[in-house]
Amino acid sequence: MPVSKLVRRREPAEFTRQEFEHRVERARKLMVKAKLDGILVSSEMNLEYLSGFTTQFAWNTPTRPWYFLLPLKGKAVGVIPEIGITNWQATSWCQNLLTWPSPRPENEGLDLLTKAIKALPRRFGRLGVELGDESRLGMPVADLLRLGKMIRPFELADAIPVIRELRIIKSAAEVARIKHICGVANDAFDRLPDLVADGDTERDIVRKFQAELYLLGADKTPYTAIGSGKGGYDSIIQGPLPRRLRKGDIFLIDTGTKWGGYFCDFDRNIALGKPTDKARRMHDLLWLSTEAGIKAAVPGNTAADVYAAQAKVLVDAGIVLGNVGRFGHGLGKNMTEPPSNKPGDATVLRPGLVLTIEPSAMYDGNKIMVHEENLVVTDGKPKLLTRRAPREMPVVAW
Amino acid sequence: MPVSKLVRRREPAEFTRQEFEHRVERARKLMVKAKLDGILVSSEMNLEYLSGFTTQFAWNTPTRPWYFLLPLKGKAVGVIPEIGITNWQATSWCQNLLTWPSPRPENEGLDLLTKAIKALPRRFGRLGVELGDESRLGMPVADLLRLGKMIRPFELADAIPVIRELRIIKSAAEVARIKHICGVANDAFDRLPDLVADGDTERDIVRKFQAELYLLGADKTPYTAIGSGKGGYDSIIQGPLPRRLRKGDIFLIDTGTKWGGYFCDFDRNIALGKPTDKARRMHDLLWLSTEAGIKAAVPGNTAADVYAAQAKVLVDAGIVLGNVGRFGHGLGKNMTEPPSNKPGDATVLRPGLVLTIEPSAMYDGNKIMVHEENLVVTDGKPKLLTRRAPREMPVVAW
Repeated sequence: MPVSKLVRRREPAEFTRQEFEHRVERARKLMVKAKLDGILVSSEMNLEYLSGFTTQFAWNTPTRPWYFLLPLKGKAVGVIPEIGITNWQATSWCQNLLTWPSPRPENEGLDLLTKAIKALPRRFGRLGVELGDESRLGMPVADLLRLGKMIRPFELADAIPVIRELRIIKSAAEVARIKHICGVANDAFDRLPDLVADGDTERDIVRKFQAELYLLGADKTPYTAIGSGKGGYDSIIQGPLPRRLRKGDIFLIDTGTKWGGYFCDFDRNIALGKPTDKARRMHDLLWLSTEAGIKAAVPGNTAADVYAAQAKVLVDAGIVLGNVGRFGHGLGKNMTEPPSNKPGDATVLRPGLVLTIEPSAMYDGNKIMVHEENLVVTDGKPKLLTRRAPREMPVVAW
Repeated sequence: MPVSKLVRRREPAEFTRQEFEHRVERARKLMVKAKLDGILVSSEMNLEYLSGFTTQFAWNTPTRPWYFLLPLKGKAVGVIPEIGITNWQATSWCQNLLTWPSPRPENEGLDLLTKAIKALPRRFGRLGVELGDESRLGMPVADLLRLGKMIRPFELADAIPVIRELRIIKSAAEVARIKHICGVANDAFDRLPDLVADGDTERDIVRKFQAELYLLGADKTPYTAIGSGKGGYDSIIQGPLPRRLRKGDIFLIDTGTKWGGYFCDFDRNIALGKPTDKARRMHDLLWLSTEAGIKAAVPGNTAADVYAAQAKVLVDAGIVLGNVGRFGHGLGKNMTEPPSNKPGDATVLRPGLVLTIEPSAMYDGNKIMVHEENLVVTDGKPKLLTRRAPREMPVVAW
């Protein structure tokens, strides 16, 4: 079980001031359309996206909320607990701060927020907050409802349509980060056959794989799932279990790993000993299905088209489609973002949209197999951000 | 830079069925007092605590929400996306499931929830949801507000006081998990001097330390912060930065690392070369302050008393207290939980309450130093869950 030493690799540069100016400028244009006088964010991904504030701390301790207020006109402001001043000043472009001594359960920054919001120029009378699809609030709901009363005559409105449109198109600097972490994970996958030792359980393999990801340059690996079983696995989101791997098993590792605030999200299949013909055929068909999905990821096509292209390969071969609900999704600061590659998702692809291509198929009753690659849509052909999986399933001799 | 091989250690047993029956029984007694006909949870920690459902997937993809409904009377039910059926059935005690094909943005399980809630025996007409202090909702707020209208005549009420009381007292099995992960992190800290190599940056050290945590048996390390500087550091929640460590530096690593759904949360200081007399004195005083905090963590004392005992040691020595807002906190499924060791927190300590003891102090202008240990309150003296830090700051010869 050889584990590598620390590998130092060239990393993407810090985001420039222009990167954030561009985000703010785009946000403000969208805010006018959405009739919002300001946007207040408290969730990890949206606060980090707009302010640049980078921390492990804030998102691991729900005791203290953290806020960023971006007005349509005027200065943005961070409204944060005193404990975070140094951390904020070192990482955010916005040096305008309001702070309070937290924990203070009776008033976790609500008075400061109210004052800042009421001072906004009131054109529409609406403050955008995180309410809608695929959002998670970074503060207690009771505090949001209380704030809604305190800021009257401003009304709370949904900021998520604005944020969705902002974040769905990635800048070159964002794409570079996703590509970087894809490279780290690809390297870890390349070493996976050497990490697997006789007697290992799923848990052992995931521990070693996660350690490898760090030594190869990852910041965090929030998601490293594994599925294994004789001739194939029956879950792609579960594990690691204490199950011991055996000759004849096929296993899958799927990882959502992060660098610089951005995720990769892809998987690889490995056979321990020669796989069955059935499993080899499934792997081949899924590889071809992925190929079709990649080809379909061009401007003008919809997310539904990308699904249809993948599904066609499998359906034409008489294969039952996977029961996952979609064949890939947006990727960025979240491991899964809009759109969904599924029937009915009419999101039109544009350059800068980063997608996973992820067909899955059922076989031998309850077995499922899945493939996944990450790409960015361009003016021409899509650019792969992962190194393409081999068409033949990798086999570890056991 | 020696990195260890995978270490297999004896791990705590799976939670028993009785563990969850006990949680549910306690929950229902508290629900009567709080006049709730049921509790609906969607956040990682509360859903996992009540249902036992264990997953990396659900909490890393906000696309699909996951629900657990615990009625005052009648059968509990998981309301989850179809993709999670296998994962749920393998990990939860509750095999009663309602599922829908997600993603389905127009209705992510709300119809199923409404039906299940409306079928509850209506004694109080109130459904508890996650609204209050230190909570984070695991679904979009807009969906919660919509649900509130759909379930009338049931009204939404705050479930957090019930959940706080439930979770603040840990069972023996929960304490065993916290102790287990404390042991893993203690072992990693013991190896830290060997991991630090000339030329390392903060980022290098954190990568190696995180890899070590996995190889020693951790599930995840969501929080591993580092602070470093000549003679001491100025932030305890930041980093890792690209800063290169030098002779004369003191650095701190603070880690919130998980096993089996429970966190440890503690730190260690290390000097690279002989530390200054001032820094050694601070370390000694903080060690004594921690000692006083540990002694004060007995039934009948309040969280404020535990703070006061720690603060007294520092104040008597003429030291400026750290600007962190508190001297420790509850610990369990969250890295920080109620109570807060701070003036005014009147939470009375009881056996089973798990606390961090975490005094901090300022020196040399903007420098801060912090210590931390984890313990469980018992009928008699508190039991340390961490192995106590050495009184003298460890020194790496450089």
